[in-house]
Amino acid sequence: MRQEKDLLGEKKIREEAYHGIHTARAAENFSLTGRQVNPELIRAIAAIKQAAAIVNHDLGDLSREKKEAVVQACEEIRRDELEEEFILDALQGGAGTSTNMMINEVIANRAIEILGGQKGEYDLVHPNNDVNKAQSTNDVYPTALRIAGLRLLPWLTEEVSRLQETLQEKEREFADILKLGRTQLQDAVPVTLGQEFSAYAEAISRDRWRIYKVKERLKKVNLGGTAVGTGLNAPRKYIFNVIRELRNITGLGLAHAENMIDNTQNLDVFVEISGLLKTLAVDLNKLADDLRLLSSGPRGGLGEIELPQVQAGSSIMPGKINPVIPEAVNQAAFTVISNDQAITLAAQSGQLELNAMIPLLADKLLDNIQILKRTVKMFRKKCIGGIEANREQCETLLEESMSLLTALNPHIGYELTTEIAREVKSTDKNVRDVVLEKDIFTEEKLNEILSPENMTRPGISGTVDFK
Amino acid sequence: MRQEKDLLGEKKIREEAYHGIHTARAAENFSLTGRQVNPELIRAIAAIKQAAAIVNHDLGDLSREKKEAVVQACEEIRRDELEEEFILDALQGGAGTSTNMMINEVIANRAIEILGGQKGEYDLVHPNNDVNKAQSTNDVYPTALRIAGLRLLPWLTEEVSRLQETLQEKEREFADILKLGRTQLQDAVPVTLGQEFSAYAEAISRDRWRIYKVKERLKKVNLGGTAVGTGLNAPRKYIFNVIRELRNITGLGLAHAENMIDNTQNLDVFVEISGLLKTLAVDLNKLADDLRLLSSGPRGGLGEIELPQVQAGSSIMPGKINPVIPEAVNQAAFTVISNDQAITLAAQSGQLELNAMIPLLADKLLDNIQILKRTVKMFRKKCIGGIEANREQCETLLEESMSLLTALNPHIGYELTTEIAREVKSTDKNVRDVVLEKDIFTEEKLNEILSPENMTRPGISGTVDFK
Amino acid sequence: MRQEKDLLGEKKIREEAYHGIHTARAAENFSLTGRQVNPELIRAIAAIKQAAAIVNHDLGDLSREKKEAVVQACEEIRRDELEEEFILDALQGGAGTSTNMMINEVIANRAIEILGGQKGEYDLVHPNNDVNKAQSTNDVYPTALRIAGLRLLPWLTEEVSRLQETLQEKEREFADILKLGRTQLQDAVPVTLGQEFSAYAEAISRDRWRIYKVKERLKKVNLGGTAVGTGLNAPRKYIFNVIRELRNITGLGLAHAENMIDNTQNLDVFVEISGLLKTLAVDLNKLADDLRLLSSGPRGGLGEIELPQVQAGSSIMPGKINPVIPEAVNQAAFTVISNDQAITLAAQSGQLELNAMIPLLADKLLDNIQILKRTVKMFRKKCIGGIEANREQCETLLEESMSLLTALNPHIGYELTTEIAREVKSTDKNVRDVVLEKDIFTEEKLNEILSPENMTRPGISGTVDFK
Amino acid sequence: MRQEKDLLGEKKIREEAYHGIHTARAAENFSLTGRQVNPELIRAIAAIKQAAAIVNHDLGDLSREKKEAVVQACEEIRRDELEEEFILDALQGGAGTSTNMMINEVIANRAIEILGGQKGEYDLVHPNNDVNKAQSTNDVYPTALRIAGLRLLPWLTEEVSRLQETLQEKEREFADILKLGRTQLQDAVPVTLGQEFSAYAEAISRDRWRIYKVKERLKKVNLGGTAVGTGLNAPRKYIFNVIRELRNITGLGLAHAENMIDNTQNLDVFVEISGLLKTLAVDLNKLADDLRLLSSGPRGGLGEIELPQVQAGSSIMPGKINPVIPEAVNQAAFTVISNDQAITLAAQSGQLELNAMIPLLADKLLDNIQILKRTVKMFRKKCIGGIEANREQCETLLEESMSLLTALNPHIGYELTTEIAREVKSTDKNVRDVVLEKDIFTEEKLNEILSPENMTRPGISGTVDFK
Repeated sequence: MRQEKDLLGEKKIREEAYHGIHTARAAENFSLTGRQVNPELIRAIAAIKQAAAIVNHDLGDLSREKKEAVVQACEEIRRDELEEEFILDALQGGAGTSTNMMINEVIANRAIEILGGQKGEYDLVHPNNDVNKAQSTNDVYPTALRIAGLRLLPWLTEEVSRLQETLQEKEREFADILKLGRTQLQDAVPVTLGQEFSAYAEAISRDRWRIYKVKERLKKVNLGGTAVGTGLNAPRKYIFNVIRELRNITGLGLAHAENMIDNTQNLDVFVEISGLLKTLAVDLNKLADDLRLLSSGPRGGLGEIELPQVQAGSSIMPGKINPVIPEAVNQAAFTVISNDQAITLAAQSGQLELNAMIPLLADKLLDNIQILKRTVKMFRKKCIGGIEANREQCETLLEESMSLLTALNPHIGYELTTEIAREVKSTDKNVRDVVLEKDIFTEEKLNEILSPENMTRPGISGTVDFK
Repeated sequence: MRQEKDLLGEKKIREEAYHGIHTARAAENFSLTGRQVNPELIRAIAAIKQAAAIVNHDLGDLSREKKEAVVQACEEIRRDELEEEFILDALQGGAGTSTNMMINEVIANRAIEILGGQKGEYDLVHPNNDVNKAQSTNDVYPTALRIAGLRLLPWLTEEVSRLQETLQEKEREFADILKLGRTQLQDAVPVTLGQEFSAYAEAISRDRWRIYKVKERLKKVNLGGTAVGTGLNAPRKYIFNVIRELRNITGLGLAHAENMIDNTQNLDVFVEISGLLKTLAVDLNKLADDLRLLSSGPRGGLGEIELPQVQAGSSIMPGKINPVIPEAVNQAAFTVISNDQAITLAAQSGQLELNAMIPLLADKLLDNIQILKRTVKMFRKKCIGGIEANREQCETLLEESMSLLTALNPHIGYELTTEIAREVKSTDKNVRDVVLEKDIFTEEKLNEILSPENMTRPGISGTVDFK
Repeated sequence: MRQEKDLLGEKKIREEAYHGIHTARAAENFSLTGRQVNPELIRAIAAIKQAAAIVNHDLGDLSREKKEAVVQACEEIRRDELEEEFILDALQGGAGTSTNMMINEVIANRAIEILGGQKGEYDLVHPNNDVNKAQSTNDVYPTALRIAGLRLLPWLTEEVSRLQETLQEKEREFADILKLGRTQLQDAVPVTLGQEFSAYAEAISRDRWRIYKVKERLKKVNLGGTAVGTGLNAPRKYIFNVIRELRNITGLGLAHAENMIDNTQNLDVFVEISGLLKTLAVDLNKLADDLRLLSSGPRGGLGEIELPQVQAGSSIMPGKINPVIPEAVNQAAFTVISNDQAITLAAQSGQLELNAMIPLLADKLLDNIQILKRTVKMFRKKCIGGIEANREQCETLLEESMSLLTALNPHIGYELTTEIAREVKSTDKNVRDVVLEKDIFTEEKLNEILSPENMTRPGISGTVDFK
Repeated sequence: MRQEKDLLGEKKIREEAYHGIHTARAAENFSLTGRQVNPELIRAIAAIKQAAAIVNHDLGDLSREKKEAVVQACEEIRRDELEEEFILDALQGGAGTSTNMMINEVIANRAIEILGGQKGEYDLVHPNNDVNKAQSTNDVYPTALRIAGLRLLPWLTEEVSRLQETLQEKEREFADILKLGRTQLQDAVPVTLGQEFSAYAEAISRDRWRIYKVKERLKKVNLGGTAVGTGLNAPRKYIFNVIRELRNITGLGLAHAENMIDNTQNLDVFVEISGLLKTLAVDLNKLADDLRLLSSGPRGGLGEIELPQVQAGSSIMPGKINPVIPEAVNQAAFTVISNDQAITLAAQSGQLELNAMIPLLADKLLDNIQILKRTVKMFRKKCIGGIEANREQCETLLEESMSLLTALNPHIGYELTTEIAREVKSTDKNVRDVVLEKDIFTEEKLNEILSPENMTRPGISGTVDFK
């Protein structure tokens, strides 16, 4: 055990631990969720430390030896080689100070080791004076959250894009399958199954675009603003150079926020992003619900499509197959929606120069991106890609339904059509037969009017419009 | 116009207005929602003013003339005779002070009038010194909210109780209608339609009990605590007597809070109540969803029940009838659920000796009770009471389904039953025929095992258990 | 009383009522909230009816007389001349059919009157066959909601823009007032009061931009898609012309949705917008909280600023002035946040070709825009515009605080500065005196380092950086 | 690798794995959150399997050997000896079937091993036919969730009870510390610091009682109801005996639900419980906010109390100590509040005979209980227990404030007191001096009226009331 010391006194630290006294105290203070700090956030902070070390050295404020050791330590962290050191719980008081200090300490001790020293010999490399030089948690942490978002969002965009393509393939595959359209779960008018999938694809394409665009929002960072955004203790040259260096390291198009004071205390950008992720969740939820409805049965439901079978459905009912993938999508969507509330609560709780609730916001936001990415991928691969149409059932339900009635409306008016509707309902006859009996149209004309195919396209069926 | 004066200076008031300068200023300050203060809250505050006047007179702090005039004014307000005077918007800053002062002013001016004076002659009866004597908004308002809750909740309980009875009637009416039970929208095992309604009735009966019990929570009031709950400026005798008087006036079993300081600042009791109202909303939402599923069709859906027709369904599709009542129930449930969030946000925002957000909480809580009362009544009268079963469709879907398979499980095991399931699915045959072909059971025995009726009761169908 | 008739039978209607049997039935069915349908939505539907009548006439499907009468009726509605006719409750089942039919009926009866007929003589002008011709609730209602949004959002943008300007004025006004910056409510480092207002202005400017941009999302409408988006019963020429006509009437840059089936059933665009409105609410809430903190006191709080006095604060504590405007802002923000949940719940509940919950979504979304508009205006006019700084108190708290310590960090390191911090805390001395005693710096040098003014700008105070 | 087989075909399983093909398929299907199924839920399911095996043996449906092996395997699971086998992600489609089957498989394979067989030799012990005998996921899972809740809630109650005691100790400790009471963050009237803590203790005591009582709700279980609550395939004797056996094993007072169909599909009881947990979160949040306000400073805030120092506060500002424990409490409260929304969304999504979203609900509900337990404990041990009063600062702020004014109200009226307030504000004088100058009271009388101590108790200070 080695001895370390801080404002509160001394404390023994495990000899082999790279983290030091601040981490140890925080670990004792916080163990609420059992979830650890998101690794993407840790990698992002390490990238910032690396950039700061390089710039501090360039400005003559950090020796070459220190710089090189710190840079090496940062790269190791970014390659996940020290991941077991990052022990802190995701939910912490203190606006992220504990996470920042944990990384400062791990970097310092690893750098000390590289320089041939013993862990804890902070004269060699100091967590605050060297690793954290010209920085504050309050500029490092929000900058890191933006970097983490910028790295995760493209993976989500890509998965959403693939989902859109798969839906479009289904749109083409099902283009000529006529079926009953339903509004309010009641028989409405004919559509094709392909049209239904085109609507899903269109909604998902909007989501893709939204998420693609929102990345722009994250590029303005407050690194260099230090404690409250004024830049205290950060040399001017450092402020200008550190973002450039960070761009090099991360490959991301980062830029200085116009107003770093604002950027330190206001988290509205994350609420905006969370709102767009929630919108994707809403679309996924609707799609999952629809697939569960359309595949309900196999005999006592709508049964118009069949989902791929991915596992046995019941421990007691043999042969039962359940729509488990869409059900998981629903639950993931609910998770995203409720995490959005946590993000909102955190963001609205800022006070004056800082928002102390940012660790919660960071955890939930990054979680939402990752859950959505995995959900979209699962949905596509395990479900949507393998959907098959039950063409016969689609046709049968369409034929039996009253959905052809609406095409009569422009020809004979709302009241008379309503009369026919009443008659169809009270008997077992279908629409065609009831109208024929009334001798309003010739059979040929009626067939033209009541053509389901015509009814899936714009215009008044049975008029010159369709020639 | 008459001239009135306050801390901020003078202001002209409409001659005929009963409210005065505080109300006028607040009306200028707040006009955010277009909703007015809930009338039940105004009646409750008037009851408190009446009790306070009586006790202040008994203690020698208010003359007989003033008391009598104030009491008469309060009774008029409680009979809604001055309702057009209560002009303030429901959403106000100030922890309810504006509402309290508005009622103080209306009572004072009406009392002045009764005593033969001109409105504004506050020497005769003063809004603060007389009507508000020994009170503060901070004890009056939370007490009034409790009274308003205690008055509205029994109406809700009664409607919930009636809904439960109607569901139980349907349970009896549909007791012998065998149908397909569905889990995850997939064919599961047989149930009766009566059993389905028994489950609805049972959930609603829990809601009834919850709401009935929660009233107890509201009986402890902080009236007498004045500004922060310490009772400053409220004579001890007043504190002890005013609740007794309030009990007489309202007929409610009110009592002093053990800790009036707590009761002034903490609004958790209302969050608790809101949580129970939300629970009712969840049950109503599930019931509405189920009814929409079961009545889907008429031809291309499940069609097992028929909802009463309450209006034509479509402006373009003649003859279409939609489940508009359950749909309205869903939307009411969503309203209640989202209002619960507003209530939570308000309640968690208390600071030190007071929660300034109580006007929002009061508005949303009373609204939730009233919306639920109307929703439950509409649901019962316009929908559930008139539901009819489609017995034939229930039987057909049951026969065609694979739901009888599960009864084979204890007789031949999960694997063999799974084999049979696979065979049934891939052919057009029904379960009975496939099993018979396999010569495992005699036809008689098989009929006993596969009896849907047996399958709706506990036990292993086809064993001595059922003799 | 006149007699009207529909699918369900006959019903008596008040002679003078412009609305007819569908409205009457819906009014009996739905009375849950006491709020009426948003007038902006009604005006938008009237604009659509007007455009449809013109195009239907152009295509030879509606006579000149009918067209002219219908157009006149629509214009009257758009000028609010028939507003007392629109009696339906905002919360309805049926995806807006009742609202659409109500407007069809009012237009038809008013047009009949214009043509010299008696209300109810639907041979002259028919609500469905004429007024609703080539339309369905399912294309009219979502289109109308987009139009209503497009009309209301610019008013909000304008108010947000004014708020931003007022904050910027305060930024300039308070540019040279040095004060204590606080993080986590603890003394941090110096800032200027102007910097604090610059951060508020910056956040609000993002909100302005977001709301300005989001209007683009609303321009794609599904009018012409009729029941499910396929365009059934809408002549192709009608579909192409009706949007052009609607652009003329409304002056809005509307266009056809690429995929009208999608646009009929998916409401994600409104969730996206609601998320941005919620983001504005979050920023307003944070700003309101900060103003309440900074103006706390007058003697026992921070007291760094003074809010304009808009009303007396207490019914029992004379002379008390409360921050009622920011408190109302908080409550409005909570309302917007919880309405966002209702909007999310509604949007995720779509089923197949339609989302029946759109009336709830429409009501809450339009309400949120309007509440925000009024809130932002109130906040600016009644509070922010009149804020005054308490310069002396700002200086005193800054001087007494430990906020100057951080500037020592780059000069003497984290540990030694921590030592000094401990000493300052345990005595009554201020930072300057303690450091001077230690003889580390000359007084001149120390004054330079500890210059609060330097500390509000980037760089290391006391280095060449600042020359 | 061994080969296993199910409805979908064959699959290779790792030789040493206790789980089998169903688990393997589910693991491939679901990996959305990285959180595993809550261990308390797994232990509860193992207890159910144990009870079922005993009863099935008693009824002659399971051999002694099988029973003994199954019982031993269940006990091992309940002692966490096989915990690394339970690999499934917490978020799954399928209403918990995968979790149930995972446990069936682990038990079967462990029992096979105990009986000397090789894993996968399901002739010896079969996951469905033996371990799951007379059960369904749909009765096992909801019963297990109730058991898990019943086991976790008492730990929470105990922690809440300890927090209450600690607050009461502080109440006594601070009983004579006079301080400024604040409403709406503005100086109001005197209170004692002890009174403030008494209010906190009172709110927490309500929470304790609520959580204590709610356990009753969980005791009615649907075990024996099998797939939909009808009891199909569960012998009547089994149904009656299995609960008794389960009571023995768990030591919990379980009983049969009156209506098992209801209990299988309706999850309202969990929404009710979640609402009460949320209420506790609301109280904790308010308490944390208050402590952060009262300890703000140390020099530029209220500074009336000091929180224990648990870690250094800043990576850049030496000597800074932050209220990290209350901040963590805030974030935990926000987590609980947002999880309540997920629970509500899940519960309202039930369809017909089942609610497929129960895995999400279970995960979030158990998580909320555990997070609250840890949060309450941390709050007490790391913060509240060590709070110290800053008596001098309390007195100073009280003396300087205008809070004594209100005591004048009953003596000289609202208007005259308002005049005095205005004079105090505009000068530097304190209340006492201004009143004395006016010669209204003798100094002795005035001292009596303005005694802060008197003002913290009921009554009119300066009247016979106080003798």
